[in-house]
Amino acid sequence: MSKVVTFGEIMLRLSPYGFLRFTQTDKLQYTFGGAEANVAVALAHLGVDVSYITKLPKNDIANAAINDLRRYGVDTSKIVTGGDRVGIYYLEKGASQRASKVIYDRAYSSISQANIGDFDWDKIFEDTKWFHLTGITPALKGNLPQICLEACKKAKERNITISCDINFRKKLWTSEEANEIMSSIMPYVDICFANEEDAETVFGIKASNTNIINGELSLEGYKEVANELTKRFNFKAVAITLRSSISASDNKWSAMLYHDNNYYFSKEYFIRIIERVGGGDSFAAGLIYSMMNNMQVQDCLEFATAASCLKHSIEGDFNRVNVDEIMTLMKGDGSGRVQR
Amino acid sequence: MSKVVTFGEIMLRLSPYGFLRFTQTDKLQYTFGGAEANVAVALAHLGVDVSYITKLPKNDIANAAINDLRRYGVDTSKIVTGGDRVGIYYLEKGASQRASKVIYDRAYSSISQANIGDFDWDKIFEDTKWFHLTGITPALKGNLPQICLEACKKAKERNITISCDINFRKKLWTSEEANEIMSSIMPYVDICFANEEDAETVFGIKASNTNIINGELSLEGYKEVANELTKRFNFKAVAITLRSSISASDNKWSAMLYHDNNYYFSKEYFIRIIERVGGGDSFAAGLIYSMMNNMQVQDCLEFATAASCLKHSIEGDFNRVNVDEIMTLMKGDGSGRVQR
Amino acid sequence: MSKVVTFGEIMLRLSPYGFLRFTQTDKLQYTFGGAEANVAVALAHLGVDVSYITKLPKNDIANAAINDLRRYGVDTSKIVTGGDRVGIYYLEKGASQRASKVIYDRAYSSISQANIGDFDWDKIFEDTKWFHLTGITPALKGNLPQICLEACKKAKERNITISCDINFRKKLWTSEEANEIMSSIMPYVDICFANEEDAETVFGIKASNTNIINGELSLEGYKEVANELTKRFNFKAVAITLRSSISASDNKWSAMLYHDNNYYFSKEYFIRIIERVGGGDSFAAGLIYSMMNNMQVQDCLEFATAASCLKHSIEGDFNRVNVDEIMTLMKGDGSGRVQR
Amino acid sequence: MSKVVTFGEIMLRLSPYGFLRFTQTDKLQYTFGGAEANVAVALAHLGVDVSYITKLPKNDIANAAINDLRRYGVDTSKIVTGGDRVGIYYLEKGASQRASKVIYDRAYSSISQANIGDFDWDKIFEDTKWFHLTGITPALKGNLPQICLEACKKAKERNITISCDINFRKKLWTSEEANEIMSSIMPYVDICFANEEDAETVFGIKASNTNIINGELSLEGYKEVANELTKRFNFKAVAITLRSSISASDNKWSAMLYHDNNYYFSKEYFIRIIERVGGGDSFAAGLIYSMMNNMQVQDCLEFATAASCLKHSIEGDFNRVNVDEIMTLMKGDGSGRVQR
Amino acid sequence: MSKVVTFGEIMLRLSPYGFLRFTQTDKLQYTFGGAEANVAVALAHLGVDVSYITKLPKNDIANAAINDLRRYGVDTSKIVTGGDRVGIYYLEKGASQRASKVIYDRAYSSISQANIGDFDWDKIFEDTKWFHLTGITPALKGNLPQICLEACKKAKERNITISCDINFRKKLWTSEEANEIMSSIMPYVDICFANEEDAETVFGIKASNTNIINGELSLEGYKEVANELTKRFNFKAVAITLRSSISASDNKWSAMLYHDNNYYFSKEYFIRIIERVGGGDSFAAGLIYSMMNNMQVQDCLEFATAASCLKHSIEGDFNRVNVDEIMTLMKGDGSGRVQR
Amino acid sequence: MSKVVTFGEIMLRLSPYGFLRFTQTDKLQYTFGGAEANVAVALAHLGVDVSYITKLPKNDIANAAINDLRRYGVDTSKIVTGGDRVGIYYLEKGASQRASKVIYDRAYSSISQANIGDFDWDKIFEDTKWFHLTGITPALKGNLPQICLEACKKAKERNITISCDINFRKKLWTSEEANEIMSSIMPYVDICFANEEDAETVFGIKASNTNIINGELSLEGYKEVANELTKRFNFKAVAITLRSSISASDNKWSAMLYHDNNYYFSKEYFIRIIERVGGGDSFAAGLIYSMMNNMQVQDCLEFATAASCLKHSIEGDFNRVNVDEIMTLMKGDGSGRVQR
Repeated sequence: MSKVVTFGEIMLRLSPYGFLRFTQTDKLQYTFGGAEANVAVALAHLGVDVSYITKLPKNDIANAAINDLRRYGVDTSKIVTGGDRVGIYYLEKGASQRASKVIYDRAYSSISQANIGDFDWDKIFEDTKWFHLTGITPALKGNLPQICLEACKKAKERNITISCDINFRKKLWTSEEANEIMSSIMPYVDICFANEEDAETVFGIKASNTNIINGELSLEGYKEVANELTKRFNFKAVAITLRSSISASDNKWSAMLYHDNNYYFSKEYFIRIIERVGGGDSFAAGLIYSMMNNMQVQDCLEFATAASCLKHSIEGDFNRVNVDEIMTLMKGDGSGRVQR
Repeated sequence: MSKVVTFGEIMLRLSPYGFLRFTQTDKLQYTFGGAEANVAVALAHLGVDVSYITKLPKNDIANAAINDLRRYGVDTSKIVTGGDRVGIYYLEKGASQRASKVIYDRAYSSISQANIGDFDWDKIFEDTKWFHLTGITPALKGNLPQICLEACKKAKERNITISCDINFRKKLWTSEEANEIMSSIMPYVDICFANEEDAETVFGIKASNTNIINGELSLEGYKEVANELTKRFNFKAVAITLRSSISASDNKWSAMLYHDNNYYFSKEYFIRIIERVGGGDSFAAGLIYSMMNNMQVQDCLEFATAASCLKHSIEGDFNRVNVDEIMTLMKGDGSGRVQR
Repeated sequence: MSKVVTFGEIMLRLSPYGFLRFTQTDKLQYTFGGAEANVAVALAHLGVDVSYITKLPKNDIANAAINDLRRYGVDTSKIVTGGDRVGIYYLEKGASQRASKVIYDRAYSSISQANIGDFDWDKIFEDTKWFHLTGITPALKGNLPQICLEACKKAKERNITISCDINFRKKLWTSEEANEIMSSIMPYVDICFANEEDAETVFGIKASNTNIINGELSLEGYKEVANELTKRFNFKAVAITLRSSISASDNKWSAMLYHDNNYYFSKEYFIRIIERVGGGDSFAAGLIYSMMNNMQVQDCLEFATAASCLKHSIEGDFNRVNVDEIMTLMKGDGSGRVQR
Repeated sequence: MSKVVTFGEIMLRLSPYGFLRFTQTDKLQYTFGGAEANVAVALAHLGVDVSYITKLPKNDIANAAINDLRRYGVDTSKIVTGGDRVGIYYLEKGASQRASKVIYDRAYSSISQANIGDFDWDKIFEDTKWFHLTGITPALKGNLPQICLEACKKAKERNITISCDINFRKKLWTSEEANEIMSSIMPYVDICFANEEDAETVFGIKASNTNIINGELSLEGYKEVANELTKRFNFKAVAITLRSSISASDNKWSAMLYHDNNYYFSKEYFIRIIERVGGGDSFAAGLIYSMMNNMQVQDCLEFATAASCLKHSIEGDFNRVNVDEIMTLMKGDGSGRVQR
Repeated sequence: MSKVVTFGEIMLRLSPYGFLRFTQTDKLQYTFGGAEANVAVALAHLGVDVSYITKLPKNDIANAAINDLRRYGVDTSKIVTGGDRVGIYYLEKGASQRASKVIYDRAYSSISQANIGDFDWDKIFEDTKWFHLTGITPALKGNLPQICLEACKKAKERNITISCDINFRKKLWTSEEANEIMSSIMPYVDICFANEEDAETVFGIKASNTNIINGELSLEGYKEVANELTKRFNFKAVAITLRSSISASDNKWSAMLYHDNNYYFSKEYFIRIIERVGGGDSFAAGLIYSMMNNMQVQDCLEFATAASCLKHSIEGDFNRVNVDEIMTLMKGDGSGRVQR
Repeated sequence: MSKVVTFGEIMLRLSPYGFLRFTQTDKLQYTFGGAEANVAVALAHLGVDVSYITKLPKNDIANAAINDLRRYGVDTSKIVTGGDRVGIYYLEKGASQRASKVIYDRAYSSISQANIGDFDWDKIFEDTKWFHLTGITPALKGNLPQICLEACKKAKERNITISCDINFRKKLWTSEEANEIMSSIMPYVDICFANEEDAETVFGIKASNTNIINGELSLEGYKEVANELTKRFNFKAVAITLRSSISASDNKWSAMLYHDNNYYFSKEYFIRIIERVGGGDSFAAGLIYSMMNNMQVQDCLEFATAASCLKHSIEGDFNRVNVDEIMTLMKGDGSGRVQR
């Protein structure tokens, strides 16, 4: 009873090397990613038994996606085969004042065309302790809002802890659409993950005095947000990552956890960014791990924040760090000294 | 009055380097190709004024496609903007007994969703002498059969020479579908290009005694095919490329031209293949060039065959050879001696 | 009861790109391989449930080796952790008259230092139908001859089919050493794999009139060898791959199977070599698969030969081809025509 | 009447990847650049109709240079063919305290050997609104001082706005030579671009209290310089980029515009440098664009500064950013947040 | 009498590109390094006649190591041939809070198995002025403590200046082992190099109030350390590099020299790290050069510190900077401005 | 008295990877080569003490050239420093019917501008046994014909054996120019190397019945040529390489040696070409080595032919094979079997 299940879309990620623009190169990194797959792979690196659920077509690109998950120890045996294509996202990495750029080419992917009944949740949830999903999956529309809801209900029946990252994506749906669907899912959720924009955009819950563009964060405002979210959906905990974007190359990073009427704030890290994609997902994985291992609340938060701090030093969507590495940072050694 | 217009779909081409399989690499060549774009670029390398027509979305991947055409001197100013995505084809290069593998991910591309009226053929055909299309474009379905037909009619009104490569693609449509649509387009066509399978699959016209798998070609059979095609559609010429596949690494390559009741056969080349994709398109470009330049019939055929022979030594969809290089080979120097 | 188990050493393989020499580059391909791991990965690509057994140290290079096996679906959960290092082999790819070059740096690897008792064969062999090993593993000396013998005995007790590839490596042991150890293991073996040199070097069984350097093979001679081997060790079958080395770039490849007093010869392939390392292992995997699936004897041989023919077109130690691809070649299509 | 013409030398740029030194690698980036070509390509990215004028030999390296310009939409049809070689500059990228290093190998390039009469300025300047040149071109000596002068005269006759970047290069000529030639050209110039060293080195006009090595800039001093330059040559505007070099990795960047007796200062950016080559050229392109589009004076300056700030995040000589991206930064969002 | 001799182990260095982890790539940089080889190559770049002594096996990997030294002008003619393998170290480059990671695979290397008598020190030390070794070589155990001691004695007999970098490596030996062996060698040493941890770990000499993890350095404490070391071993000088690790991406770097009862402190540099491996070795080379050239004491220190500051901007173990580049920085220009 | 000296121009060689065309890539291989440097490096690989003489400018590109020679053990201490640039040749590798393409950019290189008196031949020729030059060096014109002549005279005075490869390059000079200059040098030459075109183009000595384009060689004709050359210049030996170009991918390769009125013909090799540049130079190095080692005449020829056969399997200008590898092939093993 220690398995984690995550469910969502794994996409082919096509990215120019280094800081090259899309129109400046003839070579692309060919990797895979997606919020829930990122959580699964990060958990596998932490030694957690994790199963990833999605739908993929029967072709070699899908095989490469499965291989990439399997390589890091994620169970892929429950992935459903069918449909026509693997969704794609093109990623151009920014630097200094130039932002990273994402082009989605994920419409008509196999998972977005999934049918009610494609997933045998009873089988999937055998021996499962935790189920994680994000707001990206219902945003793919089609039958996915209904499928997500069904999954949550089935998980609930089995007393599986459910965590959900709001993860609003404005290229996928509107605030109104998100509000409607997410409001139906959230009542099943135990642990809610949000970033600085999600709560406001999806649920209209606004942190006071925060200017996202400038990167100024009001900690008091975040308390309000977490409190308000909890009142509305009765979460066991709300975790909010606090990113202060100085530039595409430098960020400050910390997090807040609202739990049992207490507010916990993590240490803040000043980060030289190698890659920021997947930062939130690595935080979620860290928190799931630490909560499943019954760490102290403040430690849970510090573990998750340290894990996601390290993610920013790693190329690709996936956080490839182990428990020892996170513990070292969490205990205060972020000096980057060579170990030899 | 010397411009050539080609019309079709340019796709993002994603290909592992060397002979790596899709599941064996994390890097892809990021280039572009498509039968009609290939013809356009090959013609531009021959010094021909050529304009390429398609529909592409407004994003950086489409910009990269346009840049790639523009780079080689193809006029892209008439390309229509709109729709959602650039079509993709994944290409894994074969070797020895292992065949190259193509995975199409081109459904829902901008061009495949084109609307009647997207293309202002009167404007496009200004100063145009030759119009080239292939059977791939109507195979994309939607409005494309009708758009192709309209383009042919408009070209005919202006006395523009029309060439069409049958280019049957079994992953796009059935023989029956192809037969119906192509039979409506062919009456407008002056020069018909076909390979060893097209005539039979689309029009049921079979070369006697030919075994494509074994690579044995009956020249007599091809005469029948050309003759039969001409009888049916009243072509000015039928050109058939004759590929004898020994393996993915070695092919024999020659061509036949049926013109004015005469049969012409080219020299046969034994080719060490660097890349065979685009071989037929480079032949078409060679024949269009040589016919536009009023070469002797046998020379037209030899020029086109030599051009396409050289294509097999060049990476990517596009034939990047100039007239001098083709002439050198056509005149008999295929020794590959260093020029210094 | 359909699992296959293979046991041996997986090494880090470090190889210059293309045809570069060791002293000519600053970049190495970083992959993994080893005869028995190659068989395991090839079987996984054929859809077989396969478990790979070895001993690896606790470090990131070993993790990368495990990931590489896991990526292709091989069960790595029974791999034993311990020892100090991952064995290495440096490979420089030859071309034309220049031979490929292997430098071994595998002494003191974890597996070569394995202890009696490291492997719980009873657990390993649960649900197992077939056990494959090669002569390379006992050649690593230390406790490995004894461990291999124990594994064979345990397998025999469970009626598991045992196959063994003689795979003599002159850089690891002498003919005399090999003869002594292999003679103790062979009586447990059901299916024996050998190449043109093994039988003679290890057991002094010589094919008449064969000149390995010249690449001339006497088929009659091989019949004698197979017959002789069978008489000595009472094999159910002896499979011999027949490589005719024209140069490092071109080989002829076929195989013979001696089974139930009958001699079967496969089709011969003329191969343009992309990579010949792992050719014999891919043959073994093909034969194991086809025998487990109860194909006709001649079909078993043709399947294994076609599988290993295709291997020569694939980079790296592992054969990454599926059953469909092998069947296509086995049925006669080696023309390498693009599928689209 | 909206075309821009730029004239100068486009060079082959050969550069080790990353931060490797010339003596440490066997691979070079093979791109093209040169001050005036950089301005042309940047303008093309802003949607401006721009024609680039130079002289290039008839060979494939020159073709690659032309292709690179054409790829981004620059008109290359007026480039003159002739001469023997494409000029080269080798660039080694610095980091931290180590400066970037340029080795010129541009002597005897086709453009440096250009003849009086090679350029048909009447034809070149048809429909032209703006002509841009830099001090690098006359510094190539030969006939170029005279050709530049002739071009300026012809432009003046047609009421074309002329901008010139002083761009002193000490490896090409002495202060004295520069002074003499530039003093003859400057009277034709409307908009003068300079950096912190140019005015002093070429015209002996020194900003008070400025220490270039330390990167301390006295804004008052720059006012004096601009004022003095204008008095001497009667410019409509003088634009000075203000670079404060903390190290090869970090710079501060802003600019001053002197226009109509007013001094305008831009916002200052703290930049993590991906590449600083072409920074000044991207500023010039930004100012030309904004002035041609009749933005407010302060906005012209902010647009140009934001454009050139972004350039520092882009590999290669060319600024590949569009108007939207510049506007976003100009309006204050330099947070580098991912857009998705 | 101007030759320098260094003695130690040169290892194959295998490193993922950029910031990739060991488990995330299939490509490794293939270079060479080792403390004493690093000093030799750095000296060769400064124009010093330097000979490197080690033992290497007879194979192509060893040849590549020799070639790499020879390429930069190091004399390799005294390298002894024998033994079985080239030692390896795997290096994963860290970033931000993630530390670089070293995996040693150097056991059983040829040098570690060297025999007493392998090295003919009389011949090696002909015309030699300076001998440099480090604590890493005796840490390899076997006969190396004795060989190092013999070398020192032989050098002393010839009045050769001896410098030794303590360079404690906890993966190679314990503090106790180091203390015993190094205490026997140190009496022969004239110039002692140490970093912030060495003196304490090996000799129990602790800088007061220094917290290495936090990167806070007490300069007073270092005076004590240098003083104490000198008292114990009677050094002519003690040089201590002072690294303040803000993160794996940013360090402060300076050094202290204790000489003739005086304490000298260098300028401190704020460094954006490209690579920190070899930083201490480049400092040692800088000090050896400047002392051999009889610079003023403060200049010696500044030269060595500037040299090693620049090393941090260079990929690989070796410092590839020349005297001019160091002088420029030493004189205060660390602005990184392009030279053109 | 065993040293070899070679004299000529080492050029920067810039080459697209694989079979890419110049206009199709943004990356170039950055290596060095030149006929006489190729001979020097090949000899160094054979264990010969060899010194390379040229003139190079004082910059990092020249340093890289020197490093590349030094890396393989060639003595570079006599290279003269001065002049402005390193000559360049651009190389595009051909395949199948497409020939390799060379673009020279070597005018004004340091060596081509060398002064009479730059080279101290008395010092250079100390301890020298053999001097090798080629017709390329005098073809660079300027003072080089005179310098070459002087070198030959000085060598003659010292009884140094002189070998010269005619190596006619039509891009450097005309037949008439070559004839005049080479006729003055040849009387000093002992061993003359020529290929199938040189004798005719330079000296008007034609092999009967040979068609170079078709690759048909008349052995009788070559006897005539060698005989005729010897009669004219009184050579001790004439060596002619016989290349039969089937295509850019496949050649036949053998050689003839005329010595003491006897004609020797080597074995003929069928070669799959990895790189043919430097084939003749590697033959010259092989013959120099074997003659210096007093092999039997036929063995000398076979050694040189086998050495140069292997060169065709190696990337770059330089032949990187050792004596053992050549001997193995010379003794008949060209099967390319893996050694392990």
